[in-house]
Amino acid sequence: MILAADNLQITNPHIERAVKDADPEPVRKMTLSCEAAGADAMDINSGPLYRDPESKMAFLVNTVQEVSDLPIILDTANPRALEAGLKANKKKAVINGFSLAPEKIANILPLAKKYKTEIIGYLLSPNGHVPQDGEERLNIAVELLNRCSKAGVDPNRLIIDPVLVPISWEKGNVQAMEVLSVVKFLPELLGFEVRTIIGLSNLTTGGGGDMKKKLLLERTYLSMLASSGLSIVLLNILHSQTVGTAKACRALTDGKIFAWEELQSVK
Amino acid sequence: MILAADNLQITNPHIERAVKDADPEPVRKMTLSCEAAGADAMDINSGPLYRDPESKMAFLVNTVQEVSDLPIILDTANPRALEAGLKANKKKAVINGFSLAPEKIANILPLAKKYKTEIIGYLLSPNGHVPQDGEERLNIAVELLNRCSKAGVDPNRLIIDPVLVPISWEKGNVQAMEVLSVVKFLPELLGFEVRTIIGLSNLTTGGGGDMKKKLLLERTYLSMLASSGLSIVLLNILHSQTVGTAKACRALTDGKIFAWEELQSVK
Repeated sequence: MILAADNLQITNPHIERAVKDADPEPVRKMTLSCEAAGADAMDINSGPLYRDPESKMAFLVNTVQEVSDLPIILDTANPRALEAGLKANKKKAVINGFSLAPEKIANILPLAKKYKTEIIGYLLSPNGHVPQDGEERLNIAVELLNRCSKAGVDPNRLIIDPVLVPISWEKGNVQAMEVLSVVKFLPELLGFEVRTIIGLSNLTTGGGGDMKKKLLLERTYLSMLASSGLSIVLLNILHSQTVGTAKACRALTDGKIFAWEELQSVK
Repeated sequence: MILAADNLQITNPHIERAVKDADPEPVRKMTLSCEAAGADAMDINSGPLYRDPESKMAFLVNTVQEVSDLPIILDTANPRALEAGLKANKKKAVINGFSLAPEKIANILPLAKKYKTEIIGYLLSPNGHVPQDGEERLNIAVELLNRCSKAGVDPNRLIIDPVLVPISWEKGNVQAMEVLSVVKFLPELLGFEVRTIIGLSNLTTGGGGDMKKKLLLERTYLSMLASSGLSIVLLNILHSQTVGTAKACRALTDGKIFAWEELQSVK
């Protein structure tokens, strides 16, 4: 299970200001902190970037890659920002996120072909709804693969996000359990080792509850995701207990002969 | 997921002395502590009780049931102690543990019929070895059910323990992952909702590593077991973080409409 840091996001006021002022220091600092905390990849969530999307995304990518060799995940719905990020990229980049929405098929998917990147596709209906059952989910997954093939993107480059909804929603926990089944059985249903990604913090977005309980739920659910075979988790890498759980998950799931070794670095 | 406390065991020197001296106070105190900590059942692990097995087991059962209405799990390989416990029992009792070893079939299984109790059966070969693969496990499970039927014990009374081995063993983590599959798929393979039990502390028995890391591994694995559909976990109920994780597991897996409520009691 790969740990992708979700910390570099425009909703963080320090990052928002750094982007506005083109001040690299807060972005460098955040990148180095994430790498030190155990990140295997950096999600760059720039938001839509209505003003100067190209220069702002290029600034973010360049600043991260000045101090880190980690793969980057470009997380914006703005195709202009996305392409600027891909142009600036000098290392490994992943596009986040593609879906069956017509504008994504038209504007996002072709960039994966042009820049030969991996691409994250969401299990959402074309109008953006969460699917109602397993059959609809499977149909959407197949259609995501079809769209990749038609656009000249190798389906092996697709990483599927089954879309976790908050547990505070009605039947949110039932949906969370269904997401575990999707993660576990999608490779078998699709007939190849398709990779999966989940944004862990979605589980506890909104809905009250104190932070300690939210983090407990996240750690517990992370363990369940890991045992279901999740490929990549997008998480706050600065939550040290969550990272400790992720390392314990690896000790259990990654099939090394002497599993204790994975835990040497847990504090 | 039912939480069965493994705290009342003869290897605890306070309990050993209490049993030797027939002093009820330490046994009462432990029982009340376990119930207050969230135990749904009490395992009474008396060991073999070479001397006065009948009176000692009766003492344990009577003392526990003076202060608690929780179901008890009688955990001894000594059939004399076991029957004394079943005779003393005034509430709900479960026999732990039956297996395909000839002396268990001859001496333990008939007690489940005689006293109309549930019975825990281990997925071990007749000579006590851990099965080598899924096929052998399934064969043993089927044979446990056959033995129950032949002995006049309703197979619905059987609870199966897939036998977790320490992660410090070579490929211990691979085996731990196989146990998750057994828990998940056994009901489907056997064609009815057979219940399963796991002794959580087995995961970290021996093998070095500090207690903090052992408990982290146990909590992580407990979450995995819960998402695989485990019916009963045998655990140290006084480990409050582990119990917090168990409650978070219930919030996620137990299908209540508003899952946050399960977490109200987590401190």
